[in-house]
Amino acid sequence: MMIVMKPDATPEQVGHVIEHVKAAGLIVHLSQGVETTIIGAIGEAHNIPADIFEGLDGVDVVKRITQPFKLASRQFHPENSVFPLDGFTVGGREIAIIAGPCSVESRSQIIETAQAVKEAGASALRGGVFKPRTSPYSFQGLGEEGLEYLVDARAETGLPIVAEIMSQTQLDLMIEHVDVLQVGARNMQNFNLLRAIGETQTAVLLKRGFSATIGELLMSAEYILAGGNKQVMLCERGIRTYETATRNTTDINAVPVLKNLTHLPVILDPSHSTGHADYVSAVARAAIAAGADGLIIEVHPDPAHAVSDGKQSLKPEKFAELVKQVGQIAQVMGRNLATTGVPSPVFGRGPG
Amino acid sequence: MMIVMKPDATPEQVGHVIEHVKAAGLIVHLSQGVETTIIGAIGEAHNIPADIFEGLDGVDVVKRITQPFKLASRQFHPENSVFPLDGFTVGGREIAIIAGPCSVESRSQIIETAQAVKEAGASALRGGVFKPRTSPYSFQGLGEEGLEYLVDARAETGLPIVAEIMSQTQLDLMIEHVDVLQVGARNMQNFNLLRAIGETQTAVLLKRGFSATIGELLMSAEYILAGGNKQVMLCERGIRTYETATRNTTDINAVPVLKNLTHLPVILDPSHSTGHADYVSAVARAAIAAGADGLIIEVHPDPAHAVSDGKQSLKPEKFAELVKQVGQIAQVMGRNLATTGVPSPVFGRGPG
Amino acid sequence: MMIVMKPDATPEQVGHVIEHVKAAGLIVHLSQGVETTIIGAIGEAHNIPADIFEGLDGVDVVKRITQPFKLASRQFHPENSVFPLDGFTVGGREIAIIAGPCSVESRSQIIETAQAVKEAGASALRGGVFKPRTSPYSFQGLGEEGLEYLVDARAETGLPIVAEIMSQTQLDLMIEHVDVLQVGARNMQNFNLLRAIGETQTAVLLKRGFSATIGELLMSAEYILAGGNKQVMLCERGIRTYETATRNTTDINAVPVLKNLTHLPVILDPSHSTGHADYVSAVARAAIAAGADGLIIEVHPDPAHAVSDGKQSLKPEKFAELVKQVGQIAQVMGRNLATTGVPSPVFGRGPG
Amino acid sequence: MMIVMKPDATPEQVGHVIEHVKAAGLIVHLSQGVETTIIGAIGEAHNIPADIFEGLDGVDVVKRITQPFKLASRQFHPENSVFPLDGFTVGGREIAIIAGPCSVESRSQIIETAQAVKEAGASALRGGVFKPRTSPYSFQGLGEEGLEYLVDARAETGLPIVAEIMSQTQLDLMIEHVDVLQVGARNMQNFNLLRAIGETQTAVLLKRGFSATIGELLMSAEYILAGGNKQVMLCERGIRTYETATRNTTDINAVPVLKNLTHLPVILDPSHSTGHADYVSAVARAAIAAGADGLIIEVHPDPAHAVSDGKQSLKPEKFAELVKQVGQIAQVMGRNLATTGVPSPVFGRGPG
Repeated sequence: MMIVMKPDATPEQVGHVIEHVKAAGLIVHLSQGVETTIIGAIGEAHNIPADIFEGLDGVDVVKRITQPFKLASRQFHPENSVFPLDGFTVGGREIAIIAGPCSVESRSQIIETAQAVKEAGASALRGGVFKPRTSPYSFQGLGEEGLEYLVDARAETGLPIVAEIMSQTQLDLMIEHVDVLQVGARNMQNFNLLRAIGETQTAVLLKRGFSATIGELLMSAEYILAGGNKQVMLCERGIRTYETATRNTTDINAVPVLKNLTHLPVILDPSHSTGHADYVSAVARAAIAAGADGLIIEVHPDPAHAVSDGKQSLKPEKFAELVKQVGQIAQVMGRNLATTGVPSPVFGRGPG
Repeated sequence: MMIVMKPDATPEQVGHVIEHVKAAGLIVHLSQGVETTIIGAIGEAHNIPADIFEGLDGVDVVKRITQPFKLASRQFHPENSVFPLDGFTVGGREIAIIAGPCSVESRSQIIETAQAVKEAGASALRGGVFKPRTSPYSFQGLGEEGLEYLVDARAETGLPIVAEIMSQTQLDLMIEHVDVLQVGARNMQNFNLLRAIGETQTAVLLKRGFSATIGELLMSAEYILAGGNKQVMLCERGIRTYETATRNTTDINAVPVLKNLTHLPVILDPSHSTGHADYVSAVARAAIAAGADGLIIEVHPDPAHAVSDGKQSLKPEKFAELVKQVGQIAQVMGRNLATTGVPSPVFGRGPG
Repeated sequence: MMIVMKPDATPEQVGHVIEHVKAAGLIVHLSQGVETTIIGAIGEAHNIPADIFEGLDGVDVVKRITQPFKLASRQFHPENSVFPLDGFTVGGREIAIIAGPCSVESRSQIIETAQAVKEAGASALRGGVFKPRTSPYSFQGLGEEGLEYLVDARAETGLPIVAEIMSQTQLDLMIEHVDVLQVGARNMQNFNLLRAIGETQTAVLLKRGFSATIGELLMSAEYILAGGNKQVMLCERGIRTYETATRNTTDINAVPVLKNLTHLPVILDPSHSTGHADYVSAVARAAIAAGADGLIIEVHPDPAHAVSDGKQSLKPEKFAELVKQVGQIAQVMGRNLATTGVPSPVFGRGPG
Repeated sequence: MMIVMKPDATPEQVGHVIEHVKAAGLIVHLSQGVETTIIGAIGEAHNIPADIFEGLDGVDVVKRITQPFKLASRQFHPENSVFPLDGFTVGGREIAIIAGPCSVESRSQIIETAQAVKEAGASALRGGVFKPRTSPYSFQGLGEEGLEYLVDARAETGLPIVAEIMSQTQLDLMIEHVDVLQVGARNMQNFNLLRAIGETQTAVLLKRGFSATIGELLMSAEYILAGGNKQVMLCERGIRTYETATRNTTDINAVPVLKNLTHLPVILDPSHSTGHADYVSAVARAAIAAGADGLIIEVHPDPAHAVSDGKQSLKPEKFAELVKQVGQIAQVMGRNLATTGVPSPVFGRGPG
């Protein structure tokens, strides 16, 4: 960290800051100029918040040099994190395609969708059973019943399942059954939930909050990693901007930036990042061309009658076409689509 | 809701949409023009999400006419909600000033601060005991121990206490002791938490998420109100924009907009909305001039040594000055600062 | 400027950066730590762009310490700039209230409005004659004819006139007639126009671009000041954010931030910053409470029939009420509303 | 347009709005419900601003159904606009790659760069001679001298040249020499400039303002098209958001949205949209995968010593690699890179 003193800071104030830097376990690196004094604070600074220096008398600004995260950082872990997920790996050469409906609506709906997306080339199945809805009056998901249907769909197709967790109270149930815990955008900074998930060994798909910075996303991953759970995938799902032509703005820059800063796999969700079925394929191709490790896409057998997110859901035929296009882009990138294995256990004897 | 059909929508598609509108319990209101057909969907539409129509074939756009919230709406409750809070009322003629440190750091720190802010004119005491921190390596609050100190500070000063709740698992403990549960910006859409709080009768200070729309803030309030808890205060605490000169951008417009849309009290937090002690007083005055019902302000006896948010914390003397200025603005607005009562019970025999 | 080298930067790269710093006329201030080397570049750095160092090999980040503007900076000009404007002063104790229609529509409309706003307490008259419109098919202003009517309105009322200039080609005409040149948000970075205005001695109202940072606004002011024109007022008119409840988001923080950074007067435009007549008064009061030096407000005798911006225009009666409220807030702030003088010359014998 | 009346609107107010709709040349389409009345305003509504109805008494909201642009709309011109540009076409099967330095710095610099980018596969040469700079103290471009060098570079390589115009006063000079006029982000709503360019027949690269909506970009194109100049290319160059990890946020969604809304070619500028050389290739590939018709990229023989934008400029070798990758993506998209022709005339006998 560099602590820039105000031009009129007194020697006492400088001395006082130096004491604080030392007390924080950092090495002082003093540099006195004609106009200003800069105090470098060198060492294990990633776990020291800048704000403990910002309030000191005479301090003008505090600038962080090193990233405030460590376990997530590529600097300390140069190789990509690659972890196995039921027949394929995420973060390596294979591109993961997670597909399925916004919400699990019935046993037949989720099984039909699972079969359709598997046939089209998906490597995992998504489906919401606990739904975060802006309105208390909207459909809130089938809950445990929906989870049972999801597990049945896995048994039928062999696709690993991804479902969103909204609260610590759902954790035991969820890790018993799902292959990947999805943390939604609204919970990206639900630190109690992150910490609890960090104590499990279930893979996580951590979505970026819709106004979170890339740095904050990595800090939230750090919460999970610090607990001992190393299987974290990061998901760009569009950020909130002034533009209203689409539901969100896909931050495509985030793909190369994340691949540069971290060793964790990066997934993109073009369904939420555009909010419109007509734009999903274009942005899915872009994601893979930019270097993403996978996609998560909303597919519904009958979007017109979906209970949620029908506008941004693809019909299975359109999804099949998307998979083909994405496969060709993957090839240009020296990669290939993941394919997935055999039917897995039934409800009550889950992966946990 | 108005459902605008595409210019080339077929009569069958129009018929299909009409069936859906009826199935949703709404009255159809058909209007066929030369270029386009518009289907009005009239009735109890506040609890029907627009997206159930957006995915239907032939639909171009769906525009909501009525607000999607009801209990929070001034339309159905024209009078201001005024509720008592230990010696004064919030939402009426009195201006509430909640002040205190970002974090409770020790027994002496919180008691000293409580006495100082009371003397300066504060009507309630804030202090964080469970702290949401971006980094897992930062100070996370004193937890239950901190709560005990807060209760002691109330016993000493009579100031009602406001503290943040981060998780459902803290709810029983918190409602036993605090007067106002603060829901932080990062948890504004933690719907499980909102629902749990809705089932209590403890007053709530609901902070706007740093990228939440005003409409979303009101929907989150609706979650709490729908559970039966009517004592909800809304808090503007700055939104995230491209501007970096301040920590957040105070959305001062939100004050008159909220006062227009809802009957709930509106509080402003100039400490977080500016992030800089030098700007807090100016924005505090602006808030009251714009019609806010109260303020929540970070005050620390020694900001330079605060464990968090020192940069934006006021020293007690500066806070006292702020209270004077705000009092004068309140007078111009035909209002006055709330004053608070007598010492309250000690830890273990809380308000719950 | 501080130039932070990458951890693996070579001594040659460090040496090369040092040469560049010297070549830019700055003094080198070297600080070599265990992990990283920091090169301070001290001196007249305000006119040196950071990007000339950012591309050098081995450079990690370049952080600016000093502000990149000088003439606009309060550091070099601690006293407020106060300049006379036809009977009153701007930037001192007096609060300026500039009011009038979005567009000059006819001779009678502007004269009627001028009389109404003067009676209500306005100190200057605004009116657009060249109108920047998003659509080429919208009304583009009356041009020179409108200017003539504006001058007539000044002759009738004595109010100095403020009108927007859109292009260098209008400069001669405009400075002959208007008292204050308004530079609109869309032209805040039309540098050729700024430079041309800098060579005149006509007062300027420089509006912040709707996504300009406060720093960029000050740099645009610097363009005008550098040309020799010292009479620049800065105008906050709302910034573009994700919030759609209002047309723009009033950045009320900008008021104390600007008052801190610069000696130039700060005006706020609550009509554009809210976009809705119902919210104008609340935000006008807030602006003055936050320390603004004046307001610019859209008033129309018949907003329902205004050719532009009817939705955000106040009727004269409502404006009169606003002036009263603002006057009371001004008093609390130790200030008073400006009052204006006597009828001024007619068209063709302008102030230039 | 749909005009939604307030629930308590009187029949007189409804009647008054109807008169206004008719007066605007639109057909009324009345729909009276139990709770509210909706007035459809059908016809040539693209040239009627919504705000002429918004201010009328009793009006709640006005919602636009049709797009406010016409000449730029794909609805009225379903085929892609394809126009020739010195040996290749833009908007058809060929992908245009425009490359070159941010600023023309010297004759040798621009000729050397032109040769390098041509060899690497660029189809046109960019180079700034009039530079919009935030600071009045930064390098402002070589002006006419730079233009002469650009023309020389074209003569040497046959690459058509693209340069930015900042002011109407530069128009005659520019159209005499350049093949494509670039309108920068800061001038996207400099309507006088757009109108002047609309009266020429020189091709235009219109950059999106850094906080302009897609709709506003199309309206600015409409200004040029309405003047008779049909050769307009649109350029996404990143938008301003809260994210600071990159200079701007590339709005990749804008590519399919624009391709859907308009027939005009869409170009992407990954240099400005990321601001960092390390991220340019990833975003360039993404752009083509998303369906863009071309790229504009900053290349400098020695980025470390570039007078501007060195941080985001590619070295020729890295650019050559990018071109190869982009070519492969183009192939997957059923397209190919444009190649360009023979040396063109020298300075003083330009394309105009």
